[in-house]
Amino acid sequence: MTTTATTIAPALFVKMILDRWDASIANCDTLLNSLSDETLQKEIAPGKNRGIYLLGHLIAVHDDLLVLLDMGEKLYPELNEPFIKSPDKTVQQLPAVSELRSFWVQQSQAIKQKFDNLKPEEWFEKHTAVNAEDFEKEPHRNKLNIVVTRTSHLQYHLGQLRLLK
Amino acid sequence: MTTTATTIAPALFVKMILDRWDASIANCDTLLNSLSDETLQKEIAPGKNRGIYLLGHLIAVHDDLLVLLDMGEKLYPELNEPFIKSPDKTVQQLPAVSELRSFWVQQSQAIKQKFDNLKPEEWFEKHTAVNAEDFEKEPHRNKLNIVVTRTSHLQYHLGQLRLLK
Repeated sequence: MTTTATTIAPALFVKMILDRWDASIANCDTLLNSLSDETLQKEIAPGKNRGIYLLGHLIAVHDDLLVLLDMGEKLYPELNEPFIKSPDKTVQQLPAVSELRSFWVQQSQAIKQKFDNLKPEEWFEKHTAVNAEDFEKEPHRNKLNIVVTRTSHLQYHLGQLRLLK
Repeated sequence: MTTTATTIAPALFVKMILDRWDASIANCDTLLNSLSDETLQKEIAPGKNRGIYLLGHLIAVHDDLLVLLDMGEKLYPELNEPFIKSPDKTVQQLPAVSELRSFWVQQSQAIKQKFDNLKPEEWFEKHTAVNAEDFEKEPHRNKLNIVVTRTSHLQYHLGQLRLLK
């Protein structure tokens, strides 16, 4: 094993990934603050998902992220059914947009705190959906990679929510 | 400096990021192949960008990526004006969708080849838009980080292109 190949500190790499996550969350905050509750009830394009659905979906997916990272229980387990298992416009009773906004803000703060508490090396430990045997062969299936893929997911839906402007 | 903190190989970081890039490109390929030229001429939502514009925009941005990574000249410099500097529906003459499709495929292959040729450590060198002095203070402004941010950008527009389905 050469030492030149190992001079990059894990902290640097973790910063790259968490900076991108933080920036995506901040962009989503700014966008949500610029959209009225009424606008969020609209479809992003004719016949497509509504803003409220995408917001609920993001919160539900980020709740899953907490579980995958072994950072505790879901904050809003009741959102799984209407915003992940069910497509938009098939569930009668959804939370109010104002309630989802408050969930979003509280969840983002909780996630930030938990992220800040993890040491750089701990980000390279296995996430909860991979077993120890597979992880030995596939060490990229670590906690940090969950943040990489969920940032991609957030950006995907951010591009869609942006159409409500 | 503790050694326990530096046992993570740069190759592992690089794989995590390039896997996400490759998967995003592959998702975009699949989506483009499922959309007709006629559909790509449509707006993603009423009054918003057309599919053809987003496709041209992605190619132009990925051309910039080659320059930022010091991987050579742009392949299609003529796309900068109509697809980055100008908003959609303001330029009279755009390339045909069929031509853009072919650019996209050729460019993705060229990028993949160049990415494969870079050694893991080289990804942590500075990109061309940061000077040596700033880079010393901000080592996260490296080549790999360009791929991180451009993958986010691709995902953002992928979420939009998806609405044409």
